[in-house]
Amino acid sequence: MSDIFERPLRNVIEQAASASPTPGGGSVSAITGAFGASMAAMVANLTVGKEKYKDVEPQALEQVKRLEGIMARLEGLVQADMDAFEAFMAVYKLPKDTDEQKAARAKARQAAAIEATEVPLAIGDACLEALEAAVGLAAIGNSTAISDVGVGAYLAEASLKGALLSVDINLPAINDSEFVNNAKARRERLIAEAERLRAEAIAVVGKRIQG
Amino acid sequence: MSDIFERPLRNVIEQAASASPTPGGGSVSAITGAFGASMAAMVANLTVGKEKYKDVEPQALEQVKRLEGIMARLEGLVQADMDAFEAFMAVYKLPKDTDEQKAARAKARQAAAIEATEVPLAIGDACLEALEAAVGLAAIGNSTAISDVGVGAYLAEASLKGALLSVDINLPAINDSEFVNNAKARRERLIAEAERLRAEAIAVVGKRIQG
Repeated sequence: MSDIFERPLRNVIEQAASASPTPGGGSVSAITGAFGASMAAMVANLTVGKEKYKDVEPQALEQVKRLEGIMARLEGLVQADMDAFEAFMAVYKLPKDTDEQKAARAKARQAAAIEATEVPLAIGDACLEALEAAVGLAAIGNSTAISDVGVGAYLAEASLKGALLSVDINLPAINDSEFVNNAKARRERLIAEAERLRAEAIAVVGKRIQG
Repeated sequence: MSDIFERPLRNVIEQAASASPTPGGGSVSAITGAFGASMAAMVANLTVGKEKYKDVEPQALEQVKRLEGIMARLEGLVQADMDAFEAFMAVYKLPKDTDEQKAARAKARQAAAIEATEVPLAIGDACLEALEAAVGLAAIGNSTAISDVGVGAYLAEASLKGALLSVDINLPAINDSEFVNNAKARRERLIAEAERLRAEAIAVVGKRIQG
């Protein structure tokens, strides 16, 4: 498939809605996570260069740079998620006639399941960082657009949680119990932190909307 | 601006992140709401035509049609949100030299604030309907993709809540207290229903992931 980011938005949504398995939930979560980061970035960009927000300009500029990095990472993770899915599907096409083939297939399946867990965890990491940026901007961002920091926080949290459903799906197939326990702990921490940061961002945004 | 849905995904995200005021939080919420609906639609499409899910095919087909309608509505609401924003900005360019001009300007401002409240409420309605579809599909959808119903539910809830922040911003400017009270009631109901339906969808998806 050609680069999904080069394709028209309508076409991407239509393909997501179709029975075609990619883009699936992980890829779509990375895309919507990027939209969440974009909303925080917009508020940061609307804060830079304004006399009224001169004092916080260095922090706003830092958040712009940080959010640009997060969006670029999420873009890469969309492709990584689709590649992980293709690799998973390829395992089922491997021969399983001899014992050696069966062993090789089982090994490939483990590797594919691990990759299909690592990618959504990385999407979660990027969304959590977008939430950290949203919290920072909720306090200092241009008040005329401050609600958009809240939009970004809601989207980043939802995208994180959506991506992590892929972790839930893949963990039962993985035999390496140390990897499984580690992934579960990362998953729990990401969800707890995301809920805390979203609540913090929304509380600050709510106060600033009320003036 | 040319139709945002015709533009490359990367370009849309970049414009959302820029200091350009459109697309803002309402439009982005409608786009991500459409992505949420697309995930439920994908699971519905993966359920139709499968021998294993023959019994639920009529319901799955109904949800496909419903979700296609929701996605089309959300696409229209993206444009409506950008138009409402432009109309709002246009008010500030109206003359305010004479009393008549001031009165006309105040009236135009009321109309613009009302439109900028109606559009996000309509985005919320569409996202709520996507959540209803997700709940329906959580129970009957193809189990190999069932986590994607959860992705859709998280995204629809977040998009609804994000859109409604625009209601919070615009209500204080509206003088018509009946409209304001009505909008507040719709807002409260949408949020409460969305939280309930998302929790329901995620609970069913969680059970089906565990098998």
